[in-house]
Order: sequence, then structure tokens, then C-alpha cells
Amino acid sequence: MDKTEEQKVKDEQYMRKALVEAEAARAVGEVPVGAVVVCKDRIIARAHNLTETLCDVTAHAEMQVITAAANTLGGKYLSDCTLYVTVEPCVMCAGALGWAQLKRIVYGASDGKRGFQHFAPQALHPKSTVTAGVLEDECRTLMQQFFQKRR
Amino acid sequence: MDKTEEQKVKDEQYMRKALVEAEAARAVGEVPVGAVVVCKDRIIARAHNLTETLCDVTAHAEMQVITAAANTLGGKYLSDCTLYVTVEPCVMCAGALGWAQLKRIVYGASDGKRGFQHFAPQALHPKSTVTAGVLEDECRTLMQQFFQKRR
Repeated sequence: MDKTEEQKVKDEQYMRKALVEAEAARAVGEVPVGAVVVCKDRIIARAHNLTETLCDVTAHAEMQVITAAANTLGGKYLSDCTLYVTVEPCVMCAGALGWAQLKRIVYGASDGKRGFQHFAPQALHPKSTVTAGVLEDECRTLMQQFFQKRR
Repeated sequence: MDKTEEQKVKDEQYMRKALVEAEAARAVGEVPVGAVVVCKDRIIARAHNLTETLCDVTAHAEMQVITAAANTLGGKYLSDCTLYVTVEPCVMCAGALGWAQLKRIVYGASDGKRGFQHFAPQALHPKSTVTAGVLEDECRTLMQQFFQKRR
């Protein structure tokens, strides 16, 4: 297996963990978004959306996982870390990822209505790299099913 | 005193409270940004930047004050509230203000390097109104003095 292929397998592996988090959100009636932060091939933080439960619009999966990862590392910069998140980060979360200087951001489904790529394309740290579309169908289906049920 | 003049006096009064918070941040070595949330002519939440103290890039004054205000009101939407903050919100904070649907955002000093007006101009809720430049000199001086000392 070459390096690119190896990375692809790892990305899917970690995205599955983010999907487990998203499922946990869905199970409690939250918009199903999950995230994990990986540092040196180890998951150092996991979180899922809790905006309803905590009655707090800032409780997106990414915000919580950044805070948790910084606590684990004992430093607020995550420049050796990769974030895996099931849905494209919103403007708020992308701004936070920028401040935290994540090395790499990997997401599943795109979000044309709220995603940072359209609304804040410079939000991330200039050195951050982005990979989109990992397990995209599964991530998107989870969201679509959630919103269909609510209508 | 006509309504516009009355609003101006009130805005400066509340911005002074945000400046007290910014001073509290400065006193503990934090970037001096402070914020208050006002609902029906009453301050319902106050906060200042605590990113160093909490080792958390998400601990901006605005993020904390949104969470605190939602706790006070028992609801996550702040559509009857005005946020006063000493410095123009960054992309992250503007995104959060958008989710929280604040009625009005009032800030002191502009931030050309990180401010949302340039980097995420559509981040706020479409119904939010913005007033910039309230006690601008005092808000800016506090920031400039802080960064001059650090150099």
C-alpha cells in the first residue's frame, strides 16, 4: 500500500469514529455532527453536537473537541493535530480551527448553506490543509434523515 | 433628549461596562477584550477574554458572554438582546453571534486583521444590526498599549 492509499484508509478509519459521535448526537435528538482530533496517530478528543442539550449555540462538535484536545495536550495550539468532522465546519467553527492552528481538517459532507468554504474562505490558518468528502455519503445521509424526520 | 441621542448615551454607558471587563482581562495578562449582553435595558451577562487562563482559543469574551446570556434566559436564542464588545468580533465570534441571532451588535475598535466585517461579512443573522465605533479611542488604546508592552 502506498502512502496516499494508506492515508485514505486511515482517514476513513478516523471518520468512522467521528460518525460514531454523530450517531450519539442523533440518539439524543441533536443535529448529527461528530468530530475527533487525532495527534500522532492517536485520538486525543471526541465530541458531538450538544447545542440543544446545553442550550448553547456554541456547543458544536468542533468547538468542544478543540477545547478537549487543548486540555489533553496542555496547550492551546493544535498544530500537530488533524480534525475529523462529519460535516463541513460552519463559520464559527472554522474561525476556531483557525485560532487553534490545526494542521489538517478532514470533513465528510459539504454544507453549502452554512459551510466556511463559501462564507469565510480565509478562516483557517494559512498552513492548514483541507480534505473534503471522506465517507461523504454516510455523513450526508445521517443529516438528511435527521432533517426529514423533523419536518 | 431625542431617541437617537438617548440611544447614544446608553450605548456609551454599556460600552463602559464592557471596558471594565476588558480591563479585567488586561489585569491578568489577557488580550484586553470585554463584552456585556443587554436585554430590555438590563445587563444579563458579562465576560472577558480568557484564552490564556483557560488554555482555550475558544474562550473569547463574546463566546463566553453568549453562553452566559443563554443560561440566564434559559433559551439559546438572543434575539431580544444587544451585545456590546470593545473590539470588532472575529470570524469565530461573528459566526456564534449569527447562530444566537442577536438583535444588535455594538463594538468599539475595528480589527482589520481579524474582524468579521472583512473576513466573514455574512456571518451575522440577516436581521442583526451593527453599530461600530462606540468609545472607539478608549477601546483601541487599551489594545495598542497591551501589544506595545508585549513587544
